[in-house]
Amino acid sequence: MKKLPQAIEKVSPFRVMSVMERARQLENSGRKIIHMEVGEPDFSSAGPIIEAGKNALDAGRTQYTSATGLEALRNCISQFYLDRNGVAIDPRRVLITPGASGGLTLLANMLVGVGDGILLTDPAYPCVRNFIHLMNAQPQLMPVTMANNFQPSLFDYEKAVRPNTKGLWLASPSNPTGTIMERQGLIEASEWAKQREFHLLVDEIYHGLHYVDEMPSILEVDQTAFVVNSFSKYFGMTGWRLGWIVVPDEYVDTATKLAQNLYISASSIAQYAALAAFTDKAQAVFEQRRKAFKDRRDFMAVALKEIGFKIPENIQGAFYIYADISSFSNDAEAFCSALIEEQGVAITPGADFGDYLSNQYVRIAFTTSMADLELGIERLRSALIK
Amino acid sequence: MKKLPQAIEKVSPFRVMSVMERARQLENSGRKIIHMEVGEPDFSSAGPIIEAGKNALDAGRTQYTSATGLEALRNCISQFYLDRNGVAIDPRRVLITPGASGGLTLLANMLVGVGDGILLTDPAYPCVRNFIHLMNAQPQLMPVTMANNFQPSLFDYEKAVRPNTKGLWLASPSNPTGTIMERQGLIEASEWAKQREFHLLVDEIYHGLHYVDEMPSILEVDQTAFVVNSFSKYFGMTGWRLGWIVVPDEYVDTATKLAQNLYISASSIAQYAALAAFTDKAQAVFEQRRKAFKDRRDFMAVALKEIGFKIPENIQGAFYIYADISSFSNDAEAFCSALIEEQGVAITPGADFGDYLSNQYVRIAFTTSMADLELGIERLRSALIK
Repeated sequence: MKKLPQAIEKVSPFRVMSVMERARQLENSGRKIIHMEVGEPDFSSAGPIIEAGKNALDAGRTQYTSATGLEALRNCISQFYLDRNGVAIDPRRVLITPGASGGLTLLANMLVGVGDGILLTDPAYPCVRNFIHLMNAQPQLMPVTMANNFQPSLFDYEKAVRPNTKGLWLASPSNPTGTIMERQGLIEASEWAKQREFHLLVDEIYHGLHYVDEMPSILEVDQTAFVVNSFSKYFGMTGWRLGWIVVPDEYVDTATKLAQNLYISASSIAQYAALAAFTDKAQAVFEQRRKAFKDRRDFMAVALKEIGFKIPENIQGAFYIYADISSFSNDAEAFCSALIEEQGVAITPGADFGDYLSNQYVRIAFTTSMADLELGIERLRSALIK
Repeated sequence: MKKLPQAIEKVSPFRVMSVMERARQLENSGRKIIHMEVGEPDFSSAGPIIEAGKNALDAGRTQYTSATGLEALRNCISQFYLDRNGVAIDPRRVLITPGASGGLTLLANMLVGVGDGILLTDPAYPCVRNFIHLMNAQPQLMPVTMANNFQPSLFDYEKAVRPNTKGLWLASPSNPTGTIMERQGLIEASEWAKQREFHLLVDEIYHGLHYVDEMPSILEVDQTAFVVNSFSKYFGMTGWRLGWIVVPDEYVDTATKLAQNLYISASSIAQYAALAAFTDKAQAVFEQRRKAFKDRRDFMAVALKEIGFKIPENIQGAFYIYADISSFSNDAEAFCSALIEEQGVAITPGADFGDYLSNQYVRIAFTTSMADLELGIERLRSALIK
């Protein structure tokens, strides 16, 4: 094997994948495993989306679209920002991407140069750190704590900034913590980044899946920010691989050029299907599912606290709880391993998401049915309450 | 607008996109345009693939697959190599990617470090050069000529190699030239790359769409090579965004880690649909379509020569003819512009594919119907034969 580029060594594999693989093995041997490791809703895509996908196939819509995506879909997304966030976004600024992954790849290539520093929280979605490594740039980690709702503030930015810093990347709601940035936090981030002439990127992939009344988009307070979003989570379209980015107007041409090169276009079938995601019928399904997630969250939050997990005061969005296990263990990987082997409960060790106190944290996803969650809680209770 | 990374400036936009845009404008104004610019078959996906896609949707197969793709699909591809190329490829070495674009992104990230040199032909598929730029590496161009069938040989490798060279990237059949590398050429390339400890990557995206009896894959002569392939062209699945790569066994783990980070998984619906591409029924459709492309090629080759274009002796694959226009013009961009404006015939200037003599070449695609090709030839004839 030839020597690989240095960046590759810094890219971490997903520990959750080994957890899933082990879960599969145990299931094949006949055991019932409770899946609290998976970052994917347990629902299939909503009926109207499935139907629209089939119609697109019947109509032979199987060729490339333009690199920026279907105009009709970009218009829907623009309208969605107007309806939900009260903010006018020129559809031209919305680029359809092959999943949020495709959007992140594009933005990383467009915004991050060799040797640049990018401010990220620790913990955070692991791919983001890895994208920075692939750009031969430097993730500059800001440890965030439960006391501060796992979101950073001016204090953290100032502490982590270095002479080579070029960007501030945030996530709201956050994977793995399920917490959000309030409007005031977004305003502060925006002003701070502008002052320093850093670019500001906000991962809003879990927007829509929030359990608070106010869920501001960065675009409400800063039209110069870059946004990544996805049809995977709220819209329930994971396997279709469809997302979007919003970029400031003056970046549209460069982003288009990169889209042409990086992926030609997002899936045409997925794009035609996604048009149906903006119908009342589909939105009703999404809201119903959001309600189901909220019920699960309510149940899990109470139950986990009773067992002795320390968790944030308010899981505001996404479908994750980042739980402190220090009452039980100081080795999250061993803790997760014992739980799956002995109890058949699959959860993800904190090390997947960062270094800061990661041995003391696990991510628990409520992406499985209430019945399974109840069984999982029962198993955790009997294993952990002495 | 903030300063962008240096690499971005080196990434070229696609001129063919402006041609397509102009064609659309002229069509909207009521003119009949002959599309000889588009690099996409004019067929919708074959019936069995459409049906399989709809069945996957009905079955709710809308969630992520594993990052490496469906085992069943990897097995089909492995079997395909055995049937077509007589070569045994462990399915583990086949990774399903979101289009060949996704495969190229992965391989570029895995194999190309900052400052590395990569040998490429000029002309070549423009994205490849741009991927190298995005890696902050150096495309080391090997001019190839019609006299040598637009494919490089030892002489060209030796001439272009530099102290920082790390890889040799080839394409067979080639876009934009439609020519292939014969077995002997592949053997020489492989031996030369091995001697120097360079990695060897071959773009085989147009395999299957060839009009010669022998169409060897690099895997027949070198199992240490990297291959990019696609469901877009022979299998007619452009808009689904599905491809694959084959990597040597010792690279599988690293490639898997990168796939997890770069795209999570390829479209699940596309993968289930692609399973049907290996049925006899679908293969019969593909072979019928190949025959149609061959007829178009035969027609175009004769007609273009009669008009005065100089073209390769044998268009062996893909659906492109890279034609020398020096009898008519020494400015390919002006030539293309005049053709679309005055004759309503859209073709692509050579500058999209490289620098070498590019002002003297155009790419003519035979991706449109025979009736349209005939009309296009008629228009070219009346414009160019004085």
